[in-house]
Amino acid sequence: MPQNTLQMLQTHPNPASVFDLNALARCIDACFECAQVCTSCADACLGEREHLMHLVHCIRLNLDCADVCGTTGRVLSRLTQPDQNVLRTQLQACVAACRACGDECERHAREMNMEHCRICAESCRGCEQACQNLLGSMAA
Amino acid sequence: MPQNTLQMLQTHPNPASVFDLNALARCIDACFECAQVCTSCADACLGEREHLMHLVHCIRLNLDCADVCGTTGRVLSRLTQPDQNVLRTQLQACVAACRACGDECERHAREMNMEHCRICAESCRGCEQACQNLLGSMAA
Amino acid sequence: MPQNTLQMLQTHPNPASVFDLNALARCIDACFECAQVCTSCADACLGEREHLMHLVHCIRLNLDCADVCGTTGRVLSRLTQPDQNVLRTQLQACVAACRACGDECERHAREMNMEHCRICAESCRGCEQACQNLLGSMAA
Amino acid sequence: MPQNTLQMLQTHPNPASVFDLNALARCIDACFECAQVCTSCADACLGEREHLMHLVHCIRLNLDCADVCGTTGRVLSRLTQPDQNVLRTQLQACVAACRACGDECERHAREMNMEHCRICAESCRGCEQACQNLLGSMAA
Repeated sequence: MPQNTLQMLQTHPNPASVFDLNALARCIDACFECAQVCTSCADACLGEREHLMHLVHCIRLNLDCADVCGTTGRVLSRLTQPDQNVLRTQLQACVAACRACGDECERHAREMNMEHCRICAESCRGCEQACQNLLGSMAA
Repeated sequence: MPQNTLQMLQTHPNPASVFDLNALARCIDACFECAQVCTSCADACLGEREHLMHLVHCIRLNLDCADVCGTTGRVLSRLTQPDQNVLRTQLQACVAACRACGDECERHAREMNMEHCRICAESCRGCEQACQNLLGSMAA
Repeated sequence: MPQNTLQMLQTHPNPASVFDLNALARCIDACFECAQVCTSCADACLGEREHLMHLVHCIRLNLDCADVCGTTGRVLSRLTQPDQNVLRTQLQACVAACRACGDECERHAREMNMEHCRICAESCRGCEQACQNLLGSMAA
Repeated sequence: MPQNTLQMLQTHPNPASVFDLNALARCIDACFECAQVCTSCADACLGEREHLMHLVHCIRLNLDCADVCGTTGRVLSRLTQPDQNVLRTQLQACVAACRACGDECERHAREMNMEHCRICAESCRGCEQACQNLLGSMAA
């Protein structure tokens, strides 16, 4: 997928972007990947019959994070005449969603040895970092 | 729809919320309505054969606004153990998307007499205001 | 919202549609409403601490139905040069999602007296019927 | 992303699925990838100033395909107590959306030498095939 994402950006008729195209492609990929992994983690938590009560907060944050990452990935995929405030605020929302979900998943990975939460925490950390990188380049 | 949204909030097992439930229901409805209207306006603009070139920016902002409002409406619909930073930042992103799209649609309504853009601008203004109301109550 | 949806369809530059515009507007509204209500019902079920184990299937079907209805509402909102196979198959998927979720919610409304499931079942039935109406008019 | 998708399925508390897990992971990845590429292709087409009028149908089908693939990828990501009719009909809708969009993109790649449409057509073909594979295994 990373190759296609970058190629799509490079073959755009107006590839000039607010962002470096390589960093942008990495962030778009991280958003779509995190949307998938969070959807999957919410469902895996829902299937943890005896631990379910302890995973309610995790499921809620997974669902939020899946929605926010999905929308952020779509907004970032558009190069045509973007609005910088929309980009900045949606990236900030994505950082917040990934941080909240990553913290909660990390806790379950550590305390309850939940492997799907461990993978999900890594995915959230990666997406948070990719969004921070783009935000940092906007401020410059 | 407003009645169902409010009833769903009121019949929730833990209806205590960060927000006043009536204001929350209004904002959720405004988000879903704006997601629909922006999707529709992007498509109507796409069908404006002779004016299409002048509506490219409008279509792009419509698509962003539809995605951002849809996600904001879903995040707000969840009362169970929310994260305040996620709520706040996603509401801020929704304000930014509605403002950018509302400004652009308002301009086309005024200068080109586009009726679908006039309705869409009103919908964006309403959603922006409903989000601002919730944000204001969080700061309190 | 019904008024805005219909007005958006009527002010479209090419309002000729595969469907009767009034029936189409009702179905679009039903899809967006059902997407909201199912998102809300999944979260309400997640908050039902002592009954949570019995609501796992309901939550899963709520999440599917919210996604499917949201996408169906967006696809139907576009009048410009539609593909009839896409419309027909997505409407059929929406009928299936609403039926599965409506059946499960109805059972919890009846057996466990869950009020949010009762409202959600009604919303699913209404959306299923609105989709069936459009499908019936395509076959004609 | 493929590795994470498969690992999430394998670490699920109830990994028994209607589908072979490797085929399922490939299809989920194809859906999320196609959702990204179609979002990108709609935007690239929107930026093709002199060819824009000829790309209206392509943009419309790209937007439908992005929505349908995104929802299909989310529904497939859930292993917990699925409904077979929902899976089957949503996969069929995804096949229809990918075929319509793939055909249109392929035509623009061939006749107008549009590189973003060529990549998008390949992505649609891959996703259509992955969905057909899962559908074929359900019928068995």
